[in-house]
Amino acid sequence: MTAFVGVADMVRWISRTGIETILAEMSEAIEADFRRWESFDKTERIASHTPFGVIELMPISDPDVYAFKYVNGHPFNPGRGYQTVTAFGVLADVHNGYPVFLAEMTVLTALRTAATSAMVARHLARPDSQVMAMIGAGSQAEFQAMAFRAVLGVDRLRIYDVDPAASEKFVRNLASRGFDITVCSSAAEAAGGADIITTCTADKAVAQVLTDADVAPGVHINTIGGDCPGKTELDPLILDRGPVFVEYTPQTRIEGEIQNVAADFPVTEFWRVLTGSAPGRTSSDQVTIFDSVGFAIEDFSALRHLRTSVAGTGLAQEIDLVAEPEDPKDLFGFANAPVPVA
Amino acid sequence: MTAFVGVADMVRWISRTGIETILAEMSEAIEADFRRWESFDKTERIASHTPFGVIELMPISDPDVYAFKYVNGHPFNPGRGYQTVTAFGVLADVHNGYPVFLAEMTVLTALRTAATSAMVARHLARPDSQVMAMIGAGSQAEFQAMAFRAVLGVDRLRIYDVDPAASEKFVRNLASRGFDITVCSSAAEAAGGADIITTCTADKAVAQVLTDADVAPGVHINTIGGDCPGKTELDPLILDRGPVFVEYTPQTRIEGEIQNVAADFPVTEFWRVLTGSAPGRTSSDQVTIFDSVGFAIEDFSALRHLRTSVAGTGLAQEIDLVAEPEDPKDLFGFANAPVPVA
Repeated sequence: MTAFVGVADMVRWISRTGIETILAEMSEAIEADFRRWESFDKTERIASHTPFGVIELMPISDPDVYAFKYVNGHPFNPGRGYQTVTAFGVLADVHNGYPVFLAEMTVLTALRTAATSAMVARHLARPDSQVMAMIGAGSQAEFQAMAFRAVLGVDRLRIYDVDPAASEKFVRNLASRGFDITVCSSAAEAAGGADIITTCTADKAVAQVLTDADVAPGVHINTIGGDCPGKTELDPLILDRGPVFVEYTPQTRIEGEIQNVAADFPVTEFWRVLTGSAPGRTSSDQVTIFDSVGFAIEDFSALRHLRTSVAGTGLAQEIDLVAEPEDPKDLFGFANAPVPVA
Repeated sequence: MTAFVGVADMVRWISRTGIETILAEMSEAIEADFRRWESFDKTERIASHTPFGVIELMPISDPDVYAFKYVNGHPFNPGRGYQTVTAFGVLADVHNGYPVFLAEMTVLTALRTAATSAMVARHLARPDSQVMAMIGAGSQAEFQAMAFRAVLGVDRLRIYDVDPAASEKFVRNLASRGFDITVCSSAAEAAGGADIITTCTADKAVAQVLTDADVAPGVHINTIGGDCPGKTELDPLILDRGPVFVEYTPQTRIEGEIQNVAADFPVTEFWRVLTGSAPGRTSSDQVTIFDSVGFAIEDFSALRHLRTSVAGTGLAQEIDLVAEPEDPKDLFGFANAPVPVA
C-alpha cells in the first residue's frame, strides 16, 4: 500500500505542529539538501503550456529517492472560483521504482516556497534586516511572512497589492499573529525603508511591479512571481544592481527574471553560497537578488520532511496505488483473479 | 474531490466487464486517438535512469484533457519479489489545471500495451493471420494473447521463454480460455509457421531474441520489449526486411529497436497509416515491423476509457488530492483553519 496525505490531513498536520515550526524545520531540510546539490539527478521541469495556463511535472532524484510534483498555474482561475496553483507529489524508491508516498502539495508547495525564500534570505539579506516589503498579497504572501519571521525574525511588513481586497485578507489572516503591518498604496511606498523586498504577483505577463528607483542600497530582493516564460515582475535594470542568485540555472534562464536579459547574464547558483564555492553578500550596501522560480529539490525536501513528520501519527491513509501480485511475474493471474461480489 | 481507481477496483472492473471486451474497446479508443494524432501536444517521456532500472513520466495533452503516467522498469525486481513494471496515471482538466482522475496503471498499462499492439497488427498483419509466435512469456504475454484474439481472432500461439516456469505460467493462465498453445524450446522453433511474431522480453540489454533467419516472408513483427536505451530485442538485420512503423519518432529513435541503426533510418509513424497519408502493408509477402516502445497517447486513451467506463458504477473512490478553499485566493486561511480533534 502507498501512504497518502490528503488535504484534510495536511491541515491537521499544520494545526498540530504549528506553521512556524513547520516552516523553520522545512527550511533546514531544504538547506541540507541544497548543500548536497551535486548528489541529485536534476532536470528542467516539463511544462505543457496552453492559453489558460501551464501544467508542469518536476522530477528529481538522489541515489535512493525519486520525487516528482504535478503543479498547474492558471492565473485566471480565481475569477472562476478555482485556485491559481494546485499541486500534488510523489516519492518513490529508486531501488525498485515503487511509489511509496503520495501527498497533496497545494498547501505543501506554499510552505516549501516560503521556507526556501527564507532560507536563502537568511544567507543573503543583511543580518540586521527587520522590515520586509511585500508586493503582491495573494495566496503565497502570508506563507512568506510567516517563514521570514520563523527563520529571520522579520516581523515588520509593508504590503501592497493592486487589489485592496487581497491586502485586507492578508491583514485579517495575520492580525492575531503579532506582526506590525503597514498597508501601502504603491509598490514604491511599500519598498521605502524595507530591508527585504518580496515580489509575489500572479499576472502572466512581462510586468514591472518593482522599478529600479524603488530599490535602495543594501536591500535583498526575493522575487517569486516570475516563474514561467512570459511571466516576470522586475524592471530588468534591477538585475544590474547586484549579484543574482538562482536555484538551477538552465531552468531559471527559461522561467526566471533573467529570461529578459542576455543568455550569458552572470548568475550564481545559490547552493554554491552554502558550500562556500561562491560568495554571497559581500557588503552591507550591496543589493542581492534571489531570482526564484521554484526547483524540484525543494519539493523533494518538503515531501520527505512531511513523510517523516507524519509517520506513525495517523495523519496518512493507505491507498492501493500499486498492484502487488503474489508472483511478481504473474500480473495476468492477479488481474484476472476471482473477486468477491461488491 | 478527485476520483481514484485503485488496484482492487481495477480487478473488479476487469471481472465485471470481461477482459476481451475491455481490450477490444480500448483498442478502438486508442485507434480513435491515433487518428487525431495532430491534435495532441506531444513530448518524449522524461526518464530517470539508475543502475537498477528507470523511472519515467509520460505527459500528453489535447486541447481539453492533460494526462500523464508514472512508470518504472526494473528488470531485476522479480528476483526480489517485486514486479518489473508498476505504474499509475492522472487525468487533468486543461482549462483549470485541476487533476480530476487518478488510477493504478500497472494493470491498465498491460491492457493498453496489448490493445495497442493488436490495433496496429489489425492494420499491418496479413488479414488471414492465425498463428502468433510469442518470444517471452512474462507479465505482458497473456495480455498480448488475449488482445490479439479479441481484435484479430488469432487463437493459435507458439511460445518460447528462456525460463520454462514462465511458459508454464502462461499455459496455466490461458488453459481454460480456448487457445491452441504450443510451447517451444527456442525462438526459432516458435517463429516457424507464425503469421505474427511478438517479442516481449524484459532483459535490460542489447539482446537478439529473434534473428533474421527466424523471420519468414509475410510476417508481422510486434516488438514490445525494446523500450529504453540499451534495451533491444531484434537482430538489426531484421529492420531491413520491411517497413518499420513507430509510435512517435523522436522517442523511438532513443528507446526502440531503431536505436541500433542509423539516426536517419526510415520509419513511418503509424498514425499516418490510419489517416491514409502513408502506406501500411503493400503485399502479402512483405515483412512489417511495429517497433513499439509505448507512447503517452495510449495512456491518455486508456485512462479516459477507464474513467468513462467506471463512471457511476461505484468502481472509484474519492480522495482529497486538491485543496478547495472557499476563497480561492485565501489558501493561508484555508490551511490554518481550526480543525476538529481527530
